Amino acid sequence: MTQPGFSGTFTKEFETLLRWRRDVRHFRRDPVPAPVLDGLLATACLAPSVGLSEPWRFVRVDDPARRHAVREDFARCNAEALAARDGSDAGDYARLKLAGLDDAPHHVAVFSDNDPAQGRGLGRGTMPQTTTWSTVMAIHTFWLAATAAGVGVGWVSIIDPAHVAGMLDVDPEWELVAYLCVGYPQDPSDTPELQRRGWERRDPARQQWIAR
Amino acid sequence: MTQPGFSGTFTKEFETLLRWRRDVRHFRRDPVPAPVLDGLLATACLAPSVGLSEPWRFVRVDDPARRHAVREDFARCNAEALAARDGSDAGDYARLKLAGLDDAPHHVAVFSDNDPAQGRGLGRGTMPQTTTWSTVMAIHTFWLAATAAGVGVGWVSIIDPAHVAGMLDVDPEWELVAYLCVGYPQDPSDTPELQRRGWERRDPARQQWIAR
Repeated sequence: MTQPGFSGTFTKEFETLLRWRRDVRHFRRDPVPAPVLDGLLATACLAPSVGLSEPWRFVRVDDPARRHAVREDFARCNAEALAARDGSDAGDYARLKLAGLDDAPHHVAVFSDNDPAQGRGLGRGTMPQTTTWSTVMAIHTFWLAATAAGVGVGWVSIIDPAHVAGMLDVDPEWELVAYLCVGYPQDPSDTPELQRRGWERRDPARQQWIAR
Repeated sequence: MTQPGFSGTFTKEFETLLRWRRDVRHFRRDPVPAPVLDGLLATACLAPSVGLSEPWRFVRVDDPARRHAVREDFARCNAEALAARDGSDAGDYARLKLAGLDDAPHHVAVFSDNDPAQGRGLGRGTMPQTTTWSTVMAIHTFWLAATAAGVGVGWVSIIDPAHVAGMLDVDPEWELVAYLCVGYPQDPSDTPELQRRGWERRDPARQQWIAR
């Protein structure tokens, strides 16, 4: 077969997509239409997976009581993270308003089934984490597809994953990889919020190859 | 700011990119020009990272002795994986020719610095794996950018990561996440090689939301 050529225009627009793929924290409250959400999930399933095992499990958390419980878990973990930091860092940290959990119209928990029958174990003998990593790439694909559709995604990692997994009543063997807030962004930007707020900036050294 | 709108044409072409992003095993031997490789790395650095920590460390493995040692490690691990399987599976497995290690003009090892100063620890208190997962998303971004440039990438996971990390003489704290073969693909396809060879196929159930 012959791979379709991707034009310079596409490559530039793809880079623009990567630049606007932000970790969104501020959401409008209007919902994303169901067919759009379904399309994002279908696109996410084009992600690579070890042995073609597709270990990702996308869970929509719609139940208000469950969403509230996750929010409380975040609030507790965030307070503990703040308490563990000294003054100035902690101040910056508090100002970051890490969660769009209250406003985002959709919550999506993404789990990894780390011992799936699908894929017949191929490729994960010496590096079993490749299963979880496949799920991470599906999340990243979902995120990029969402950005292209004008939908924002925020990845909340300041939670107790085992605790949140328990609240969601899924297969106890599944690993919680991400808890995502999904909705239209209130204030899109091509600059990471952490950079805009002076938390951190990119390091140009990362763009240099290390030679061996 | 206003996010640039992504056209339907772009979205379709992006889906085409995802469909042609293959795990390449068969490479042409001609090298990829250095400016192209540099551009792929620069694009990879647009990946998300927890706390903007950019934990990825991209290492080009050019030394023939080192490349040979990695190849030997793969051969040993692959033989062990084969020995652990029963007849029919093992036959399929052997036919997959999992490594493009001999032909690919470039080898890239990607490590994760899992305790970086950059990012000041933000977001990884309760989920420390988010650092490694950031590196996984940089690898995925590299892979997509490569596909857009007509360059193939094959992710070799049938190696002993600690052993290979030792051969490459990097910071002993870094975690080896991927060993990539990089070069122009011999026989591009939009269908996973594992599916073409009857190993496994995608499961349409993955495209359904699980509701909670």
